[in-house]
Amino acid sequence: MSDGDAAEEIMCATYRALCSYGYADLTMQDIADEFSKSKATLHYHYDSKHELLCAFLDYLYERLVERTAAVEGEDAHERLLGLVEAVLVGRDDREEFETAILEIRAQAPYDRGFRDRLARFDSHLITEFAAIIDAGVEAGTFDKEVNPEDTAQFIVTVLTGASTQRVTAGRPVECSQRMLDNYVATNLLAEPAELSG
Amino acid sequence: MSDGDAAEEIMCATYRALCSYGYADLTMQDIADEFSKSKATLHYHYDSKHELLCAFLDYLYERLVERTAAVEGEDAHERLLGLVEAVLVGRDDREEFETAILEIRAQAPYDRGFRDRLARFDSHLITEFAAIIDAGVEAGTFDKEVNPEDTAQFIVTVLTGASTQRVTAGRPVECSQRMLDNYVATNLLAEPAELSG
Repeated sequence: MSDGDAAEEIMCATYRALCSYGYADLTMQDIADEFSKSKATLHYHYDSKHELLCAFLDYLYERLVERTAAVEGEDAHERLLGLVEAVLVGRDDREEFETAILEIRAQAPYDRGFRDRLARFDSHLITEFAAIIDAGVEAGTFDKEVNPEDTAQFIVTVLTGASTQRVTAGRPVECSQRMLDNYVATNLLAEPAELSG
Repeated sequence: MSDGDAAEEIMCATYRALCSYGYADLTMQDIADEFSKSKATLHYHYDSKHELLCAFLDYLYERLVERTAAVEGEDAHERLLGLVEAVLVGRDDREEFETAILEIRAQAPYDRGFRDRLARFDSHLITEFAAIIDAGVEAGTFDKEVNPEDTAQFIVTVLTGASTQRVTAGRPVECSQRMLDNYVATNLLAEPAELSG
């Protein structure tokens, strides 16, 4: 088993352990229990739970970058809705996992390692949304009055709120997604904006 | 000191202790240290940290109801912006406090007492926003096509996202507030909607 394989397997074990136990009560032993090798092997790669979780956040970041890069669409409008979908909708065990991530988020103000890594997630999403909106304005799909950066931040705020509410209140994200789709259609598309001009 | 005075003083001590220590590391002793009476007095009123924090969430809920009831405005548009302001903008120590609340939120999936209480906050805000929007539609301030319930949920999602991002990424809420004001002006007001009709 190469170092890369071991690292990948540890990340998968961490994912499963977070889904099962959440963040607060998680121990290295819980992760080792999900891992085919010994706890000693885990400690050979990572000195502490904190170091392992920071590496896990880096791993998630790479997955996010891959997932956002895979978003396709005929025009900026389709790509924007595809990116919303890619962020909001995921695997079946998404809820347990998002719960653990929210716990890590809630520790971010006390933990620079977590904070800096989580900030990268938001920055990446804002950059991706802004790039799509910018391209849409250039192509005439979106209204030229739309500010790509502000709008991208607003969309990421809605996505953050939808995720927090799904985790903490069990509210389905479908309503947020539908409202966001309406928002894009009404506020971004060039056509309705021209009608009111 | 009456029971009511003691309860109020314990709530204020809990507020200060949460701002100083956060939720995860908070002990009954930390709260007692902020309280003018003994730890025994604290335990006379509350058996455990969990019971005290549930009572604290009930206390916060009553404050939220008071704060939302105090929102004024000449019409539904002003009242809606006033309610957004009342939820987003608060005291100077707001950030430390919101951090502690996000920690409690992140525990909600594991804790029914927290979950049910936090759900009441969201429900109350959605009901208040929906009532203002409904009145605005009736009065002709807002477009008659606006769905009060969906729109209220969407606004609360944006507010939840703005709070989560302020806590976890230190992002100021001003951008969210400005975008939300624009959203209301563009999507809710009857006048621009009539222009495009």
